[in-house]
Amino acid sequence: MKKEDLKALLADMSLQEKADQMMQLMGLFYLDDAEGVLTGPARELGVGEEDFWMTGSILGTYGAEQLMAIQKKYMEKQPHHIPMLFMMDVIHGLKTVFPMPLAQGATFEPELSGRCAQAAAREAAVSGLHVTFSPMVDLVRDARWGRVMESTGEDPYLNGLFAKAQVEGFQGDDIGKPYKVCSCVKHFAAYGGAWAGRDYNTVELTEHTLREFYLPPYKAAIDAGVGMVMTSFNTVNGIPASTNRWLMRDILRDEMGFDGVLISDFSAILETVAHGNSADEADAAKKALEAGVDIDMMTSVYAANLCRLVEEGKVSEALIDESVMRILELKNKLGLFENPYKDANPEEEKTVILCDEHRKLAKEAAGKCFVLLKNDGLLPVDMSKKVAFVGPYTNCKEIISSWAVTGDVNACVSIEEAAREVFDLTRTTFHQGCQMLDNDYHLTGFGNLGESVPGKLSEEEQKKMFEEAVEAAKKADLVIMPIGEHFLQTGEAASRAMIDVPEIQMNLFREVSKVNENIVVVLFNGRPLDLRELSKTAKAVLDVWLPGTEGGHAIVDALTGKINPSGKLPMSFPYCVGQVPVHYNEYSTGRPNLEGMQERFKSKYIDIPNAPLYPFGYGLSYTDFEISPVTLSGDVVTDVQPIRACVTVKNTGKVEGTEVIQLYIQDVAASVVRPVKELKRFEKVKLCPGEEKKAEFIIDEEMLRFLRADGTVGSEEGKFRVWIGNSSNTKNEAVFSYQK
Amino acid sequence: MKKEDLKALLADMSLQEKADQMMQLMGLFYLDDAEGVLTGPARELGVGEEDFWMTGSILGTYGAEQLMAIQKKYMEKQPHHIPMLFMMDVIHGLKTVFPMPLAQGATFEPELSGRCAQAAAREAAVSGLHVTFSPMVDLVRDARWGRVMESTGEDPYLNGLFAKAQVEGFQGDDIGKPYKVCSCVKHFAAYGGAWAGRDYNTVELTEHTLREFYLPPYKAAIDAGVGMVMTSFNTVNGIPASTNRWLMRDILRDEMGFDGVLISDFSAILETVAHGNSADEADAAKKALEAGVDIDMMTSVYAANLCRLVEEGKVSEALIDESVMRILELKNKLGLFENPYKDANPEEEKTVILCDEHRKLAKEAAGKCFVLLKNDGLLPVDMSKKVAFVGPYTNCKEIISSWAVTGDVNACVSIEEAAREVFDLTRTTFHQGCQMLDNDYHLTGFGNLGESVPGKLSEEEQKKMFEEAVEAAKKADLVIMPIGEHFLQTGEAASRAMIDVPEIQMNLFREVSKVNENIVVVLFNGRPLDLRELSKTAKAVLDVWLPGTEGGHAIVDALTGKINPSGKLPMSFPYCVGQVPVHYNEYSTGRPNLEGMQERFKSKYIDIPNAPLYPFGYGLSYTDFEISPVTLSGDVVTDVQPIRACVTVKNTGKVEGTEVIQLYIQDVAASVVRPVKELKRFEKVKLCPGEEKKAEFIIDEEMLRFLRADGTVGSEEGKFRVWIGNSSNTKNEAVFSYQK
Repeated sequence: MKKEDLKALLADMSLQEKADQMMQLMGLFYLDDAEGVLTGPARELGVGEEDFWMTGSILGTYGAEQLMAIQKKYMEKQPHHIPMLFMMDVIHGLKTVFPMPLAQGATFEPELSGRCAQAAAREAAVSGLHVTFSPMVDLVRDARWGRVMESTGEDPYLNGLFAKAQVEGFQGDDIGKPYKVCSCVKHFAAYGGAWAGRDYNTVELTEHTLREFYLPPYKAAIDAGVGMVMTSFNTVNGIPASTNRWLMRDILRDEMGFDGVLISDFSAILETVAHGNSADEADAAKKALEAGVDIDMMTSVYAANLCRLVEEGKVSEALIDESVMRILELKNKLGLFENPYKDANPEEEKTVILCDEHRKLAKEAAGKCFVLLKNDGLLPVDMSKKVAFVGPYTNCKEIISSWAVTGDVNACVSIEEAAREVFDLTRTTFHQGCQMLDNDYHLTGFGNLGESVPGKLSEEEQKKMFEEAVEAAKKADLVIMPIGEHFLQTGEAASRAMIDVPEIQMNLFREVSKVNENIVVVLFNGRPLDLRELSKTAKAVLDVWLPGTEGGHAIVDALTGKINPSGKLPMSFPYCVGQVPVHYNEYSTGRPNLEGMQERFKSKYIDIPNAPLYPFGYGLSYTDFEISPVTLSGDVVTDVQPIRACVTVKNTGKVEGTEVIQLYIQDVAASVVRPVKELKRFEKVKLCPGEEKKAEFIIDEEMLRFLRADGTVGSEEGKFRVWIGNSSNTKNEAVFSYQK
Repeated sequence: MKKEDLKALLADMSLQEKADQMMQLMGLFYLDDAEGVLTGPARELGVGEEDFWMTGSILGTYGAEQLMAIQKKYMEKQPHHIPMLFMMDVIHGLKTVFPMPLAQGATFEPELSGRCAQAAAREAAVSGLHVTFSPMVDLVRDARWGRVMESTGEDPYLNGLFAKAQVEGFQGDDIGKPYKVCSCVKHFAAYGGAWAGRDYNTVELTEHTLREFYLPPYKAAIDAGVGMVMTSFNTVNGIPASTNRWLMRDILRDEMGFDGVLISDFSAILETVAHGNSADEADAAKKALEAGVDIDMMTSVYAANLCRLVEEGKVSEALIDESVMRILELKNKLGLFENPYKDANPEEEKTVILCDEHRKLAKEAAGKCFVLLKNDGLLPVDMSKKVAFVGPYTNCKEIISSWAVTGDVNACVSIEEAAREVFDLTRTTFHQGCQMLDNDYHLTGFGNLGESVPGKLSEEEQKKMFEEAVEAAKKADLVIMPIGEHFLQTGEAASRAMIDVPEIQMNLFREVSKVNENIVVVLFNGRPLDLRELSKTAKAVLDVWLPGTEGGHAIVDALTGKINPSGKLPMSFPYCVGQVPVHYNEYSTGRPNLEGMQERFKSKYIDIPNAPLYPFGYGLSYTDFEISPVTLSGDVVTDVQPIRACVTVKNTGKVEGTEVIQLYIQDVAASVVRPVKELKRFEKVKLCPGEEKKAEFIIDEEMLRFLRADGTVGSEEGKFRVWIGNSSNTKNEAVFSYQK
């Protein structure tokens, strides 16, 4: 449809019809078996069934047949036959589930993440979906926050690259094309800064940090053409994002140039009443509209109030027209006016969903996200040994995250299933050892995963299970322990004040370690955990996160050496919870501490180190790499003359491996205080044993820019440090200066 | 001296002489036995001995004779015979040490704190001092930060009252009068917000929170006429305070109206180089001068660079004149031009320092700061019982803080000393039980307290001590356990990631609890600690902080019931370290959690409650109080018509007691998100058994003001909640509205 036609359409719409376009409801209301829902929650929403059928978009329902049926019925009822938009949280896969986003961050391979997004989009598209609420690009520094699993980590540059790759993966170059869906970047802004790591809590950040660290990844998504932005639940400088005009008009629209659809998070407009920023629903509607929020997710605040507000002269209809036009334009870009079903196709669903190609990709991504935290020679496993698998994740298929709401747990491959294909079963045993959590540990599920009762065995059953496992461990040469967090301990609304592996599993670990000193921990986790005890006692620790559908196969390949781990931590693993928030790119203080020194008046703790247990960018390999000192092609960067920074990387071990060579920079003195180091570039280098390659990076003026004291972005003359290494704690340093 | 004379004096001074007025050095350089210092550190400062004798002020030395001798020699050398200023950290007492500031906050009695400041000023003044670096009014929310002990807590209103009372206590109505010293409020600004509780670390706060929570106590000190302000070590919105023009010129001078002397913290100007905000020392000098910092504490950055900067045309001499005039004016206000020795008096030192009056006041303050956290009937002690005192604080005199640098530990009264005066020694025993810390626990001291090695006993000695104590506990009817943090685990540069009672003491506690269930813990602490285990097992917990010189007497009086505890927590005691920062006056979220509910999508942790273990304003008594429901004289406040809010408080117990009746308010909806509640007024009510009194508070429009979304301060119409009770978690609520 042409712009003029859209304008004519808009002009022809009634005010209520416009307001309804700005409402989004749960898809379940539209299903034939939703009678109970319609008379229950529907009534609470304060809208009748007929209003439902005016709603501009729905969320949370998928499946080609269902959505096609809803679309058909909807378009018949909608006065102007405007098609409906179907949205869903396809965060790291629809049915084929890829590693959780933080794990994808660990691949340091945005291109791979982009391919995962592309595959997810294909499954979503044939299922009838038009929009996915992904990527989440909130910078994260606090391991207590459950939602760190949905981010790609603590670095704005890395997050920006993943944001771009994922947006392009979902959208391609034109969302109207087959198998493409519109991407929605979230949560604008700074949701990841939740105070004390408690979900939905206040965010306290200086405007400087907000702009330097938190906003860039959203900007990267916008520059990549993202079609939609979602507001965050938190306040930004005292005002909830969804009613924050400064944030949404001045920053998002004017400064960042976003012209797509702005949607609220789930009931976030209504929740500004609980926030105490809106006096009532009507006030919330007015404020959100004035801030430029186009779609009200999952409440009737817009639909029930906007018309009256216009009639009473309290808001301008022009604002509503502006929002509705953006929604119509999105529908038009998706080609829905021409083909309201877009890619929905029940036949293709059968061939695309969980197809071999997607499973293969899921396995590739899983294999690349694993981070080898420790290895005292036990990995890869010597296949001539007697191996005992002991731990609740041994034969667990719940290895997708709580945000893989559509994911098919039954399609997941467990470690045991995969191991049985490879290990010599005459000398391999499999034992759960203990439940994942104690019986009295309460967890609340959501999505199709429902309520979870992870523990239910009697004490005797547990005792038996425990003893059998320890006995098996005693008899083995090597114990592989798949342990970690339950997936419902992570994700949205799963903040933890203790960031430990559950105590019941630690007890199993302690007992096993008494009978066998050769322990390999295969760690499942949605967040950085306190690994002091595990990493001290176990001889090897392989972090596999929540690896997705093909996790089991990838883990077994990594254990056996078919895959050589190359993942790097995208988020610091704190020494203990008393150290959070901890992140490598902290600002310089006036009293920097030198580790090992015992001076009192330095910026440090008196009982723990300043450094995290495992830093950002860290990760081992089954081979060894030697990195040469940094060489620079010159020691002065100017506006017209960049320099080259080089290292030679050599594989000095016995197997092929991939190293992530990372370049960090520090601006030594500036008009504002700068981070002690910042990741600026990286390169994955794959090397055969004995092989060496150059890793070369261009350092130009643009790389040196930042938000200066006067509010402008640019570089400043002076001294810089550059490090090139395989972790953020590399000491491989050189110095240069920048002159205009 | 008249203003004109000061101007003439300034006009007559050389540029270097001016710059020297702006330098402050350690007093020890000026002492006769400081030869080694003069050739060592002095050389590092880059100034010669003659430059020393030009320095405008010194810090860290006291004593009438010494300072008079220095002053005499100085004025002979100083070309214009300008007297020197003598400054010192007299934080909670010079020789007579009052409870540490956080403990003073617990008294909820600013007037008492004012009297302590007055007594401290008297001891300081006769010792020859002119300025004290107190009060510290930094708002604190993170128990990890060591310096919380030096603040009066987490509430801006309470901190403001203490700021005013202390400033007035130190200064009186005229600092030129006898026994008065100039007060220096610190640390401007927001030093208490150190990221992750790590001292000297970056501060991340929205400007809104900075202005609403952190700035008001400094403003209260300025409004009370404080003569000096100290810069903070941290950055404020990306720029170190000491080089932050916006903070110092726009906020401190222009908005807050401060016209006194601005001094840097200890080498803070120089440290902006380490911060990476200044390229070198000269740059630091230029930036700090331009920000309006008048005195450079303890470096030669000003003295060595300002002249050259003026000569090179890089800074204006007018800025220097402005600073020097402020310094001269302060000296003039102190009357130093007329009497350069002011109150210095070796004879009076003997009669004033540690005089009975001051000791009596120290005991009163200590008695009023104790917070009774739990009491299952064991307190006050039944004197007919056999009592065992067990714990390392039993006979410890180190019960002053690390910030009582001049304090006399030998003058302190230990618990055992005081108990021996009162308890029947035929049935009372005293045992240390264990060292305060393990032998391998490293602590670094400062000031005259020197290096501390708190543990040094051999394992056998420790075992014997332990066993004897447990044996004594077994034989007693009641065990009183004085345990807690070592004083050097708190204070500046003593951030702790674990906020526990030291493990060696917890082990003692656990063993004692196995042989005797009647345990009273007397808790020494410089910060809120994780008390889950102690408060579960012990039958009574009395928090005595670091109570100062007369701590022992006051504690024994509290144990025996001669003093009835009335202190209230000025800072939340977290449930565990994973909950920090936690504070009662948090902003409303959009998804408030109802304790006890099991809904997933609420702002909460999944493993601990949101509420701290002991909330702000909490504290028990030996008697019981009944507080009636809130009555309001009306339900509408207008600009001209306040309302009265009333409760009746009745002592329903058997002994006299004092209750702190607290009034909290919540602005239900506003243009910015407001705290869930805010302390607005309180009253200490003393009641005999059976007695009742009314506590009445006026609620007027002024009480409802805040920083609005448009940047102005004022009230907004709408609904308000008011609570009146004896803790911040009171449910005694009423509702009113405000209309213009």
